[in-house]
Formats: sequence, structure tokens, C-alpha cells
Amino acid sequence: MFFLPMQHKAAGLSHNPLKAIVSPRPIAWVSSRGADGSINLAPYSFFNAVSEDPAMLFFSAEVLAGGQRKDSLRNIEETGEFTVNVVGEAQFDAMNISSGNFPYGDNEFIHAGLEMVASETVATPRVGGAAAAMECKLHDTIQLPRNSDDRGYVMVIGTITGIHVDDDVVVDGKIAYDRFVPVSRLGYRDYGRVTDIFEAVRPSD
Amino acid sequence: MFFLPMQHKAAGLSHNPLKAIVSPRPIAWVSSRGADGSINLAPYSFFNAVSEDPAMLFFSAEVLAGGQRKDSLRNIEETGEFTVNVVGEAQFDAMNISSGNFPYGDNEFIHAGLEMVASETVATPRVGGAAAAMECKLHDTIQLPRNSDDRGYVMVIGTITGIHVDDDVVVDGKIAYDRFVPVSRLGYRDYGRVTDIFEAVRPSD
Repeated sequence: MFFLPMQHKAAGLSHNPLKAIVSPRPIAWVSSRGADGSINLAPYSFFNAVSEDPAMLFFSAEVLAGGQRKDSLRNIEETGEFTVNVVGEAQFDAMNISSGNFPYGDNEFIHAGLEMVASETVATPRVGGAAAAMECKLHDTIQLPRNSDDRGYVMVIGTITGIHVDDDVVVDGKIAYDRFVPVSRLGYRDYGRVTDIFEAVRPSD
Repeated sequence: MFFLPMQHKAAGLSHNPLKAIVSPRPIAWVSSRGADGSINLAPYSFFNAVSEDPAMLFFSAEVLAGGQRKDSLRNIEETGEFTVNVVGEAQFDAMNISSGNFPYGDNEFIHAGLEMVASETVATPRVGGAAAAMECKLHDTIQLPRNSDDRGYVMVIGTITGIHVDDDVVVDGKIAYDRFVPVSRLGYRDYGRVTDIFEAVRPSD
């Protein structure tokens, strides 16, 4: 069958299938700090690395009608810094709490019972207990086309200025997924655990 | 511990940890067509949706010193179109074959024993037997900073003009992962199967 996402019901699908097809998506648990010192923590799954060297990543945040920004985007535009924390299964409930709709200035670290740990190269705190965190400086923001409701996403592209890795998740010089079990976002209300792993050699290796 | 990716050895890590931390990454199996009719098929894991409505996605391709482009990027710059195919476990070996270094003009569909199926809104073929495929028109390319070796990534941002979903993977109006088992890219030589799934309700739902 063939259809556009907005016509998915005509194709017998109950939901827009985009998020179910582009899966599993890694989760960026983004901590940020506003010009007034407000702290925010929120998850985003339109997220990935975009360059290996220099190390860079992006996430996309939806901007509402009239240009109203999510707190993460507002903070990053104000201060030019953010930190991306990794979500393991031990952090899942806290990550889910942090996705709630809190007013600007409410600190999700407190709502979710998380420790704020000072970063090294940016002023945004990272999540205590996370297996890894990437400190970022804003490289650029890109406004994507808005839809008929005047909503549209902004891509936030950051340069990674430092990485923390918990010593407990490093085995033989490599990051061991069984030490923290990364959680990913799938379609609908589904999430995945990274437990079913296999190794393969590329033809060029 | 704290370090930059290029200093990972000082931190006791055997590899740059970026790809192991930003995991699991969905795989874009990109088919494209050059101005001379050449067909290419290659996998990319710096990939995700970037906007839900309008439906848009990106992938990043490395550009070598002197500006030498991967075949996918060359084709997309020439014709402005591409198709992103989904990799299920049944396509894993073919996807891996298609990641080999073939000369420009060599058709990876043939090397990997895959059927080319005509698309609806673009001239690039899609992969027969894939659970889903997204037809895309080029929205923009973004050159990211180059490193000291004059290498750097280009982000390819596309607008999705149509989606195919195999009827066999739709159950009760939803995409059923157990019907094809999506494969993701992890760090090192590791890949993941999406089999360990749980459901959670967000606070705002």
C-alpha cells in the first residue's frame, strides 16, 4: 500500500506510521539551563549523532503555533549549551516523569528525584547515575517547514565538547550494554530494551 | 571520567565511544539514482525522523578530503530524490553486502540479490520485501564542519512524499515488529534486534 502519513487511515492504519517505521530511536535526555538559571530536563527521540569527527549530534524540538518554544529549546537558544544524558533501564521511570508538562522554571531533576552533577565544559548539569553524558555547545538551529497549524520542528545541532562514561559500564575498554541496558523509543506507546545483540563484520572491514 | 572523543584512549577506552553511546541507531537503507541512471543502495545509521508533520527525515554521509562524495549523496544531489528502506532481520545479510565499497555505477540491488520495485512519487527504486519504505524529495543539504583531515559530514534532509507498508506487517491497524524484527546499529561491530519491548504511558497522555 502507498500513502502519505496524513492519509494513513485510508490505508487501514490506526496511527501515522512514521515513528513506528523509524525505529528504534535512541533517546536524548536533554538537560539545559536558561539565562535566568532555570534548569530543564526532557527526553527527545528525534535524535542521533550527525558527525563522528568532529563529534556532533542533533535533536528536533517541536515549535508550536506563534513560535512558542519547548523549554529545552528556549534555554539552548538563550545560553548556547546543553547536555545529552543516556537513558538506561534504571532511569526509565525518571525519564518518563521528566516528559511531563511542567511550567517553565520547574526543575524536572527535582520532580524525578535525580541528582544534578556539575558538567566540565558547560554550565548545564548532567544526570547523576546515567551511564554516559555528552556536553554540547550549540552549533546551529534549523527551522523546518511549518504545517497548516503553524507548527514545525527546529533541529538543534550541537558540537560535543566532552563525554562522561561511568566506569562501571566499561568492560575491556568497551561500553557494555548489559551493565545499564539502553532504552529506545519505538512507535505508539512502545519502548525497547537493548538486550538482543549480535555481531557482524562489514565487507570492507 | 571525562574526555573528548579523540582522547578516549587516555580514558581507558579502546574506541571512540560516540557510536556506542548514541545507540540503538535506526538504519536508513538508502536507495538513490544518479542523473545517468546509476542505481545505488547503502545503509546509514546517522539517521532519524526530524519532523512528524510535515513528515521529514535526515541521514548524514561522510564527505572525504577534496569533497569526494559517497554515491548516495552524489545521486541525491544530482536528482533530488531518494528512498529509505527499512531493514528487518530477513534483510540483514543483503544490507551488509550493500555496505561494501563498490565503484560508482555498480548496482548494490544486484550484488545483494534484491528486487528493485518502482516507487510512486520518485524515480528511485525501493527494496522488494522490505517491511516499509519512505519516498523522499530532497529538502536541503547541510555541510557540517570538516576535521583536520578535511573530512566532514553532510546532512541530507528529505521530505517524505509517500510511505509503503507491507500488508503482512500490519496487525490491528498497527505495525507489528514481530512480523519483521527491525535491526538497529549499536557500537563497535554490534547490531540489535527489536525484540525486548514494553509499553509505558507518558504523564501527559
